[in-house]
Amino acid sequence: MAIRFSETLEKMKESDLGPLLKLTEQPDIISFAGGLPAPQTFPLKELTEVAVKVREKDGVGAMQYGPSLGYAGLRKAIADRMNRLYDTHVSQDDIIITSGSQQGLDICGRIFLDKDDVVLIESPSYLGAINAFALQQPRFVEVPTDEKGMIPEELDRILSSTPRVKMIYVIPNYQNPTGITWPLERRRQFMEVVNRYEIPVIEDNPYGDLRYEGNEVAPMKSMDSKDLVIYTGTFSKTLAPGMRLAWMVANPVILAKMDAVKQSTDLSTSCVSQREVALYMTEYDFEGHIKENCRLYAHRRDVMCNAMKKYFPESVHFTYPHGGLFTWVELPETMNARDLMKDCIDHKVAFVPGDSFFPTSGKKNYFRLNFSNCDDERLEEGIQRIADVIKRHM
Amino acid sequence: MAIRFSETLEKMKESDLGPLLKLTEQPDIISFAGGLPAPQTFPLKELTEVAVKVREKDGVGAMQYGPSLGYAGLRKAIADRMNRLYDTHVSQDDIIITSGSQQGLDICGRIFLDKDDVVLIESPSYLGAINAFALQQPRFVEVPTDEKGMIPEELDRILSSTPRVKMIYVIPNYQNPTGITWPLERRRQFMEVVNRYEIPVIEDNPYGDLRYEGNEVAPMKSMDSKDLVIYTGTFSKTLAPGMRLAWMVANPVILAKMDAVKQSTDLSTSCVSQREVALYMTEYDFEGHIKENCRLYAHRRDVMCNAMKKYFPESVHFTYPHGGLFTWVELPETMNARDLMKDCIDHKVAFVPGDSFFPTSGKKNYFRLNFSNCDDERLEEGIQRIADVIKRHM
Repeated sequence: MAIRFSETLEKMKESDLGPLLKLTEQPDIISFAGGLPAPQTFPLKELTEVAVKVREKDGVGAMQYGPSLGYAGLRKAIADRMNRLYDTHVSQDDIIITSGSQQGLDICGRIFLDKDDVVLIESPSYLGAINAFALQQPRFVEVPTDEKGMIPEELDRILSSTPRVKMIYVIPNYQNPTGITWPLERRRQFMEVVNRYEIPVIEDNPYGDLRYEGNEVAPMKSMDSKDLVIYTGTFSKTLAPGMRLAWMVANPVILAKMDAVKQSTDLSTSCVSQREVALYMTEYDFEGHIKENCRLYAHRRDVMCNAMKKYFPESVHFTYPHGGLFTWVELPETMNARDLMKDCIDHKVAFVPGDSFFPTSGKKNYFRLNFSNCDDERLEEGIQRIADVIKRHM
Repeated sequence: MAIRFSETLEKMKESDLGPLLKLTEQPDIISFAGGLPAPQTFPLKELTEVAVKVREKDGVGAMQYGPSLGYAGLRKAIADRMNRLYDTHVSQDDIIITSGSQQGLDICGRIFLDKDDVVLIESPSYLGAINAFALQQPRFVEVPTDEKGMIPEELDRILSSTPRVKMIYVIPNYQNPTGITWPLERRRQFMEVVNRYEIPVIEDNPYGDLRYEGNEVAPMKSMDSKDLVIYTGTFSKTLAPGMRLAWMVANPVILAKMDAVKQSTDLSTSCVSQREVALYMTEYDFEGHIKENCRLYAHRRDVMCNAMKKYFPESVHFTYPHGGLFTWVELPETMNARDLMKDCIDHKVAFVPGDSFFPTSGKKNYFRLNFSNCDDERLEEGIQRIADVIKRHM
């Protein structure tokens, strides 16, 4: 076959991570690899009720083509909720509904990035965002990051010396993969630098609702005096990822570009699901539901962290996240998490090795653990197995 | 704001078609502009039943993350149906589920096209496909097209003399916008040329199921001895566009590239909707439902065509489609359909002017009419109004 693909697709390497992650789906493996919500959190009874109501009361609206920016009722419910919870002044007109935040990230890549443009990211950063942006063939620059987020002085240095920086991607709450949260002061410093250079920021907040302790830290969007922040939220972690529903908030100029891309890429997100979730948000106890989720996940985080404390050698460090789905493990520098993972799979336990989260530095001695989707027994047993393999590798 | 967008988005012209089409959404306008299925065809009772069953029996599967290629049960139901109806040998492993065929077209653009690569299209061709491919900044070449489809000799001439042709896009059944259907012999001739040059073909078939007379003409996919054809089908015209469900069939090498892009752009299509439609296809009378739709649409086509015969001047020609949703009107060469449309909107009737369907030649004297979404009275009244405006413009 003489078929030639586009440059991006011809260059796309067959990642060895894919086949490895496939292995983690075997049912006899204890997997800490994914980022899956616990299935018992899905409010199936309520989601069945809203499915019936939507089809009975607004069936035609649900089944017909809809606007590319999204269903007005859902956009309004989201704006109202954001303004109630955060110190924001979001209008429904500032919102575009996307098919999961993954699509929002892809749309951002397409509206901002040409080949060899620069994207600044935390070090490490979310693999799915890196993959979405990579379709545009940008250059990634990892901004040095400490336990409070991107280091503002480093960001300033990079922005002052790097041409073609088109956007900055950050996850300030319970970051993927590290689990860390940027404190308020760091966010303010970050925005001060960003406002000086006027670079668009994608503030990805998939985990913000899953807070297990501490207070809400105001989103960067609430400090966005120059309208540079594109805020991303999702229903995948709080309600149900299978519905593929998320949103972005952006200034009108950016939103119009997003809308043009959305229109050409899939016309609109499911009109049915949008109505179902809008109804759920307005007629059911979404906040109570999220609190229930948090209770479960906080417990699982504790079980995992306590097991690591108990079984891991002292030279192995891990984060204690105040929310979200992940903890991040640092091995001694001489160790290689990918080698470890291969061995772990033989011992029927899995995680995601950390090097893929560092697109340029590719650090080898980290891995990411997810604690949301295993019961206590499997959490304890899985950590014990990883500990055994770590000890053998030392 | 100093924000700079990507080259594609910076260059993207604000189309004057968008604002015009917005006007057609006013409720007092008789609109033949869209391509909307008639809302009374949506099988709401059945879609409510499957929504409940899926949530009760496979709620966790429906609400959790799912595979990027799609839900196996839906892929199987689609493969079975295609093989039953057409002379194909499609396996579920050859199929990727997309969020509407618009997304499939976008994915094709991304896997094949770099800037200045060439896409061959019918003259005229579907505006939404042109817009999707345009995000990759290709060059479009319109292949001369007669009432039987692309002219094989012209296709041969263009392929032999044009560098960088990366793909060919065609709609052989009840084409959008013309309504014409390629006869079997023309399809064979087309595939003979394509096989010589080994260029991937996107065979877009959104309307094939809406056949009002004549026999099924075998899809190009059934003559695809070199595995070059990417076949696209959708549930938007037969079931409900609001669910955003479609599929593509392609050879394994192409499908793997599609899967990689799908994964990075939205992870997967709605797991809930996929299960609902799979259940509908296997437990309900989908074929009977389609036959009902066809009865309604055939009638509406006749009402519109008879009205045009009655009211339009003889120098105005139109196609009599054997299926699908559109007829294509040719005005005398000196007339301009966009000017006509502005006047028509003042007279509370709308259509899509044809120039946008010719990305390079931009012919001015055509327009597209949709007949699926108006009752008899509005069909007759709308055509009469257009006829009046035409006569005034002559």
